[in-house]
Amino acid sequence: QSVLILVGEIYEDLELWYPKLRLIEAGAAVTVAGKEAGREYAGKNGYPCVADASLDQMDPAAFDALVVPGGFMPDKLRREAGVLDLVRRFDAAKKPIAAICHGGWIPISAGVYRGVRVTGSPGIKDDLINAGALYEDAAVVVDGHHVSSRRPDDLPDFCRALIERLR
Amino acid sequence: QSVLILVGEIYEDLELWYPKLRLIEAGAAVTVAGKEAGREYAGKNGYPCVADASLDQMDPAAFDALVVPGGFMPDKLRREAGVLDLVRRFDAAKKPIAAICHGGWIPISAGVYRGVRVTGSPGIKDDLINAGALYEDAAVVVDGHHVSSRRPDDLPDFCRALIERLR
Amino acid sequence: QSVLILVGEIYEDLELWYPKLRLIEAGAAVTVAGKEAGREYAGKNGYPCVADASLDQMDPAAFDALVVPGGFMPDKLRREAGVLDLVRRFDAAKKPIAAICHGGWIPISAGVYRGVRVTGSPGIKDDLINAGALYEDAAVVVDGHHVSSRRPDDLPDFCRALIERLR
Amino acid sequence: QSVLILVGEIYEDLELWYPKLRLIEAGAAVTVAGKEAGREYAGKNGYPCVADASLDQMDPAAFDALVVPGGFMPDKLRREAGVLDLVRRFDAAKKPIAAICHGGWIPISAGVYRGVRVTGSPGIKDDLINAGALYEDAAVVVDGHHVSSRRPDDLPDFCRALIERLR
Amino acid sequence: QSVLILVGEIYEDLELWYPKLRLIEAGAAVTVAGKEAGREYAGKNGYPCVADASLDQMDPAAFDALVVPGGFMPDKLRREAGVLDLVRRFDAAKKPIAAICHGGWIPISAGVYRGVRVTGSPGIKDDLINAGALYEDAAVVVDGHHVSSRRPDDLPDFCRALIERLR
Amino acid sequence: QSVLILVGEIYEDLELWYPKLRLIEAGAAVTVAGKEAGREYAGKNGYPCVADASLDQMDPAAFDALVVPGGFMPDKLRREAGVLDLVRRFDAAKKPIAAICHGGWIPISAGVYRGVRVTGSPGIKDDLINAGALYEDAAVVVDGHHVSSRRPDDLPDFCRALIERLR
Repeated sequence: QSVLILVGEIYEDLELWYPKLRLIEAGAAVTVAGKEAGREYAGKNGYPCVADASLDQMDPAAFDALVVPGGFMPDKLRREAGVLDLVRRFDAAKKPIAAICHGGWIPISAGVYRGVRVTGSPGIKDDLINAGALYEDAAVVVDGHHVSSRRPDDLPDFCRALIERLR
Repeated sequence: QSVLILVGEIYEDLELWYPKLRLIEAGAAVTVAGKEAGREYAGKNGYPCVADASLDQMDPAAFDALVVPGGFMPDKLRREAGVLDLVRRFDAAKKPIAAICHGGWIPISAGVYRGVRVTGSPGIKDDLINAGALYEDAAVVVDGHHVSSRRPDDLPDFCRALIERLR
Repeated sequence: QSVLILVGEIYEDLELWYPKLRLIEAGAAVTVAGKEAGREYAGKNGYPCVADASLDQMDPAAFDALVVPGGFMPDKLRREAGVLDLVRRFDAAKKPIAAICHGGWIPISAGVYRGVRVTGSPGIKDDLINAGALYEDAAVVVDGHHVSSRRPDDLPDFCRALIERLR
Repeated sequence: QSVLILVGEIYEDLELWYPKLRLIEAGAAVTVAGKEAGREYAGKNGYPCVADASLDQMDPAAFDALVVPGGFMPDKLRREAGVLDLVRRFDAAKKPIAAICHGGWIPISAGVYRGVRVTGSPGIKDDLINAGALYEDAAVVVDGHHVSSRRPDDLPDFCRALIERLR
Repeated sequence: QSVLILVGEIYEDLELWYPKLRLIEAGAAVTVAGKEAGREYAGKNGYPCVADASLDQMDPAAFDALVVPGGFMPDKLRREAGVLDLVRRFDAAKKPIAAICHGGWIPISAGVYRGVRVTGSPGIKDDLINAGALYEDAAVVVDGHHVSSRRPDDLPDFCRALIERLR
Repeated sequence: QSVLILVGEIYEDLELWYPKLRLIEAGAAVTVAGKEAGREYAGKNGYPCVADASLDQMDPAAFDALVVPGGFMPDKLRREAGVLDLVRRFDAAKKPIAAICHGGWIPISAGVYRGVRVTGSPGIKDDLINAGALYEDAAVVVDGHHVSSRRPDDLPDFCRALIERLR
């Protein structure tokens, strides 16, 4: 099993690191990709993360799932056509797309949430609904290949659901 | 002329201070309101701003216009029912609502942008469109009582347009 | 299952949060205890953690295991007689004591590592050996009820071993 | 109309940005010059400012006015012979020199304040008087081509006076 | 021997701490006084210093010398009438006044440097000269009871000269 | 007289700077060596220190004494075989080794404290004892060529003792 995680400046520290370490514990190979391979990005609270790879060289065919952490990183990455295309290809292949907190902004901009049951940070609830998603206030919501959670506290539920789907 | 400006943690420093000082220069009385009167909020880059007044005691009838700065402050304030109600009352009274950068998230959540021509940060472009707004990429867009801009560089155009409407 | 985790200023962010969330995912109840209940401690990289409880009110009988994160927090907590006594009681009861990175300073000062096979940060290797421990350079070392690891990268192995012992 | 603004580390954020944006709003062309063109300087509160040009390549003949912000930047720039020479040439040409807060240290060191009515931060009041200036405690003082103010709160008066002189 | 040292926000860290520890090593009793007794002030580089006493309760008769560190602290303290009065009384009693770097701003404002040979930070050279002092560029300048130096590098010369005068 | 001082990230600011300036005041030549010559290291509280020289080019024969400041710098430097070898050669030559606070971790790892009377930070007391040292709680302890102290407050005693040994 191989999983891709997105990184960028002001990513939410635990929403990246918990899934990363948890997926490794579960036996998956994890690749963290940012705009620049080898660059160190700082989390919202300061935790550093070096990108393993460059986003524009990622091939969805090489991965079994995509994880989109929150923080304010999605506000920047959702502006990148390449990132949105990547998300659409995971969606078309019905591979798990797991977004937490403000991570949902990226699937919104990729246009893959129409008619999908999801949750997310209360801060993006209106954006989710306006994008055609069906918002629920729950620790984790799974609808088809879409997994979503609201905040760092939900990480145990978020990862349990994602790992189940990967089996 | 009396103008209300919203403040909260991680407000964009210049997007609050330039309109505030510019409106004072133009002869207006300016009130900066946050969740707690007298509290000091830190800008995205660190500039401090003490709230003159508490948001939940603001009466739209006492003001001629509303300014909504960007930064990540709107991500928090858009969750407050009282803030959204305040915005709706400015809208109902057709008093100028001037939002810049990520400030647009608040009118989105207040539901006052449907059918309105606006601009805003590229980061919220999709949210604006999904909310029914007609997005334009311009330094300032004026549509009825709605004034909007994209980023700090647009502040001269933003304030010129707002002040014209206040005359 | 109930687990106690120690917290204090400059704790290593992931070495506290990964076990905490991972144990919750595994169904355990987790209590984070610092010198002052309700106080927010800052991690080495800035991640905040509010202590659930006060260290001097913790009763080892109420817990099935103890987790000791690293960072520079152990440098301060190892000076507290109450903390060392707590560790000795987990040791006497042969309940799992899981220490990672610089966390090992606390079992050293509690005097419970004599003759025990352990690992830890290279920075405390000499202190472990001088304390009578048998140092190994491995991602995780389990000897009786003692579980130890070297650094954040080892967290998946660390938690897998700890959770196995809790079953 | 063309205006030159000085920048350096620990410039007062608003005392640079408000005049810059305000002058652009008024139709002026603004050049921000520091010791190194293209370098980003941090304000006293953290706001970044990239210098458009290098101070030692500035020709007073190309500008209609000079703005000297405060903060602790003037403490460093007043040591530069080139900066003082630049100020003396604006003074000799009777072109507006607008200094705010601690900005006055630079005209002091250039020796252009003897017999001039000025204001400035209370922190430099004695230095102004010792330099032969006539200190007044007012939001803005205009004496010939010299415009001066005390602090960020005075920016509306400062810019109104400067812009009037530029007409 | 008893020595008074001034403290305030953004004091130069070593210019306070080196004289303090050095004078203690030489057998003197040292009192650090700020506006508020018991308050912790942060140095320009972040070193904390708790004030032993409140400036407005200091009696020059109780001390044999005064030390004025630099940093930007003097920019604030020179505005305090009580501080200036204190300095004048040390001067009238011909007790050593040792100022380093930007510390000289305080004797300038107290009006005690007229005709005195001094040195100081290049940043305040013009202010010293305008205040009637005779500026020299040397590691330490002693003129009567006035001792002065330019920067942290000069601290060994500064303290040697001060301690000689205290014998 | 020539003295070598160790530096690295998160060195305790005063524990490096006070001995450095004090030894210069006493007429010694001081060399500060870190892993990289010319690099700036930040103290625990933020004071910068540029290394004069690279640790791996230091020859104990060129120096009369070694100073080991505290902070968390020793946690990293004690892992360097070259540093430990350097310490052993000062020890073999019976040249003064002066360690303060957490500085003692380095002589511990060099194995030169067995049977030596020392003091140090309470945080490393157990490590000192486990390393075979005889711990005393005093402002300064001198045993043969070993000088040690507990914390910044002890710097006057620490330097007095070191300078006496250098005469």
